Order: sequence, then C-alpha cells, then structure tokens
Amino acid sequence: MLPFARLTIIGLGLIGSSVARGVRAQMPAVRITGHDADPAVRKRAVALGICDDVTDTSGAAVLDADLVILCVPVGAMGAVAAEFAADLPADAIVSDVGSCKQSVAEALSAVLPDAIIIPAHPVAGTEKSGPDAGFSTLFKGRWCILTPPENAPEVAIERLRIFWQQLGADVELMDARHHDMVLAVTSHLPHLIAYTIVGTADDLEGVTQSEVIKYSAGGFRDFTRIAASDPVMWRDVFLSNKDAVLEMLQRFSEDLSALQRAIRYGKGDELESLFARTRNIRRSIVEQGQDDDAPDFGRKH
Amino acid sequence: MLPFARLTIIGLGLIGSSVARGVRAQMPAVRITGHDADPAVRKRAVALGICDDVTDTSGAAVLDADLVILCVPVGAMGAVAAEFAADLPADAIVSDVGSCKQSVAEALSAVLPDAIIIPAHPVAGTEKSGPDAGFSTLFKGRWCILTPPENAPEVAIERLRIFWQQLGADVELMDARHHDMVLAVTSHLPHLIAYTIVGTADDLEGVTQSEVIKYSAGGFRDFTRIAASDPVMWRDVFLSNKDAVLEMLQRFSEDLSALQRAIRYGKGDELESLFARTRNIRRSIVEQGQDDDAPDFGRKH
Repeated sequence: MLPFARLTIIGLGLIGSSVARGVRAQMPAVRITGHDADPAVRKRAVALGICDDVTDTSGAAVLDADLVILCVPVGAMGAVAAEFAADLPADAIVSDVGSCKQSVAEALSAVLPDAIIIPAHPVAGTEKSGPDAGFSTLFKGRWCILTPPENAPEVAIERLRIFWQQLGADVELMDARHHDMVLAVTSHLPHLIAYTIVGTADDLEGVTQSEVIKYSAGGFRDFTRIAASDPVMWRDVFLSNKDAVLEMLQRFSEDLSALQRAIRYGKGDELESLFARTRNIRRSIVEQGQDDDAPDFGRKH
Repeated sequence: MLPFARLTIIGLGLIGSSVARGVRAQMPAVRITGHDADPAVRKRAVALGICDDVTDTSGAAVLDADLVILCVPVGAMGAVAAEFAADLPADAIVSDVGSCKQSVAEALSAVLPDAIIIPAHPVAGTEKSGPDAGFSTLFKGRWCILTPPENAPEVAIERLRIFWQQLGADVELMDARHHDMVLAVTSHLPHLIAYTIVGTADDLEGVTQSEVIKYSAGGFRDFTRIAASDPVMWRDVFLSNKDAVLEMLQRFSEDLSALQRAIRYGKGDELESLFARTRNIRRSIVEQGQDDDAPDFGRKH
C-alpha cells in the first residue's frame, strides 16, 4: 500500500534526487513532480529522467501533491515555502530533509500556518552535490528522524513513517530540540572541525600545500571528505543550529585543552586511557551496522 | 637485484607484519627473521607463517641481519635497540617505521653510536592492530619518507630506497625536523582531534552514547576510524613529537575560535568562503591518487 500517490520534491540536489530515485525504485506507482530554483539543475533532472515532471515554478510543482518534501538548504526553507504557499493543497503533508529541525519547523509554520507540517531528517549523505550525485539506495539502513509538532495528526506521521521505511530507512520520532542537540554532536561538530583543520593545513607557512596533499594518507585525508560537502548547505546548518553547535564546540574545546595539557606535561597515562576508550565506540558503531568493519573504510590497497 | 638478503623485523604488529608480507610477495628470496616482545604475537606470527624464523630474543633476531627494521611504538625504540645492540652486525643498516623522526633518530643513535641508522616513515596504515591486520599491499602507492642523518652513507640510503620501492612505495628524502612538522599536520593533529571529539561525544549528559552511535552516519563515524588506532602507538607519537604537535594544535585552536565567532555573530559569508576553499584541497588529494573519488569513501550503500 502506497502512503502517497503524488510526491513533489523541491530541490533536486544530492538528497532530493536520491529521494526521487528511491521512490522510482521502491514505489514506482507514485507520480513524482520536481522543481529546483536553478534552471541548470532542472534541465539536468529532466535529462536524468528522475521525475515524471519538472516544473519551472514551485507553485506549479505542488498543485496536486499529497506529499511535498523540501530538499533545500535549511536557511532557504521559509522563503521556498512562501513561494508555493498559495498553491499548496489543504490536505497535503509538507516535510523536509534538513539537518536542523527547530529552525525549519519555525520557518515553515510561519509561512504555512494551516498546513500539516512534519519535519524529517534522513541521516544520510555523501560529500558529493547535485542531481547527478544522488542514488536510490542512499537511505537504506540509515536512520530517518521525524520531529512532528505536538498537534500533528497521527495518521500523517504514520504515512510519512511508511514512506521512509519504503526507501529503506529506519524511522525514529524525536523532539526537535533534542534532535538538534544529538545532531550537533554526531554531524554538525564533526563537519565544523573537518572544515577547520583543512583550512588550518591550507594556511601553514612552514609546510606547503603540496606536502599536505602528498602525505594526507596519514589521517588528514579522512577529514577532507566531509570538508568537501556543500558549502551553502553547511553554512546554513551552523547558523540555524547556532546554540547547540556553540555548546558542543565549547565542550570540544575544553576537552582539546585538557589533551593539550596532557601532552605538554607528558601525562602518557591520561592519553592512553582516552585512546583506549574511543576504540570501544568505533566497535559499537560497526556492530550496529552504522559503518563497515573493512580496514581503512574499505579503500582499495 | 635485491637490496638486502637478510631482513630482521622487530615488532610484528600491523606495520611489521605488512612489511614481512610485502617482502615475501615482492622479494621472496629475502630471508625474514622476526621478533616481538609479546609471546602471543610471536606465536601468532609463526602460525601465520609470515617470517622464515621467529626468535624469542631480539638479539638472536639481528645476529646475521643486513637490514633491521624496528616496528615498535616510537617511545620504545631506544630500549628495544639497546636490547640487541651487542648482537648487531657492524655493517647492518638499522631503520624503523615510526611516525616521528627526530626523537627516534636521537634514541637510536644514543644506544647504537656506531651503527648505520636511516630512519624511515611509510605513511600508510589502517585503524587495525596486530599481526593479523597486516597485508602485503599496504605500502603500494603510498609515500615512504627517509630522514637520513648528514653522515649517512649514500649507498645505504639507496639500498633502503630500493627496498621501499620494491614494496610499492614512492620514496622521498626529508630533513627529520621538517618531517615532524609536516606529519604533525597531516597525521598527528587529525588523530588528536579525532580522539578528542570521540571522547567529547562519549561524555555528554544530554545525549546518550547509544544516540551518538545510532546517528553517527551524519559525519561522526568518519572520525571514529582513526580514533580506533593503537593507543600506545599514538600516546608515544604525541609525547615524542610534542613541540610540533602543540604548535599545530595552537593554530587549529585559533582557527576554530575564529569559526566559532563567525557562527556566534552570524557571519555566513566567512563560513561559506572557508567551506568552498576546503573543497579544492579534497579535489587535489583525489587527483594525486592519495584517496579514492568514490562517494562516502566507497562505503557500500
């Protein structure tokens, strides 16, 4: 049984195009309408054939939708929703895929006061961007977190849950505020730190950029992957989830200072005991299927 | 033409056992003698058949060697070399695989004042440890940095260069001090930061450890790989390369503070311009063959 018959995807980048491809593969009877603000992306989406229809305006895209998913940077959600507000059917469910949920919920409800809004966040992605980067199995075995507001109809939540499960995701419900704190540590802080260290390495005067690149297999290259993620998307995430990100950053900085002190004063035992502890977390992540056990991420050797 | 006929490997963990396997595969006529301080590792090395001979003492291992490679934590180099000093043939070349080179050179020359010492660092590895984790192609396409002292015989340097080239590595000569600074940024700082953030995530009270693990695909899991590396090896690296690590850490902290400030005051342009710049570094690393271009490190989806 299909949870929705007519899906509209606004934003056809990595995530939007992966949703389209996943729906095509898992729910082929669903009619998919797509829109993107960028004419070049619309043209590419038509060429890729990932939607049944690609419209030039977001209003035209939502006209007969029963599910609208916004796959745009979190800072653009409100403006994009305002564009199609007048054309949105009264019984359509509006959702999204953004990395922070409180700010998105506020932005959407401000411009769509009467709509059924159920924010969502599939915790999945790659460092690539654009419609060509998407693939149908991106959400398989990953978590999708729904943060329905208190007044959200149960049946709408259930339909959205079934939708993401059909795309292969495991679905969890969470309070938006708690989501933003959890993701601040599992996603936003890691990205922020990766961007920082790659920038630091780029700015050194005693070590050349070509040396940094050449010897990156010592660990640095692991950080460059997520530091290659979409700049606008991540700019918006940090600004939209400011409080939680700054809190996590503060804790991280304190821990880093403690470690710095341990190195300065030669406290080997402190270092070793932290390093042994962090091994166990890796083990749990692998055991719970959230990463491969293949050495070096399974890179070819 | 073989650069060496009788190789001794002291320390049969990930790197030592990979050297043994690589030599077996690429230079099968070389006789390989191994030793490890841990009897369980010696037993396992015998069972794996990666050496021609595994001895119970390091002295017995080096007796007729023409190349001795120390594959032990950098803090143990001096003590291990002292153990076999009396048994080392006068014309043997002594080398190592440690991640810092100034401290190793000092430790080795203190206890082996008359030996030919050519420190080396193959910039390769995985997060796994122990003799079972090694594989023959670990060094293929990776850089191996030699940091010969000024008085090192040219012919000895050339033999060691050929040795590592036969294992598939590209060889570079470098001043030990410069090596330690380059590796502080491309390897030591990334490990330190990965260990820190994984520890930070483990200590939160508002977010459970099970949530951190569950939603780690948002970026966090990338950091857990190198934070699962050998605790003793890394404790020694940070203590042995203290000055360069502390300097890089200081620069990183300053850059992180600047980013923190940009988030706090909503300076989106600053964030976006840094994030766009870091993308280019990733591109260069991929172009120069130091990482795969496969999205998400080629993880299965």
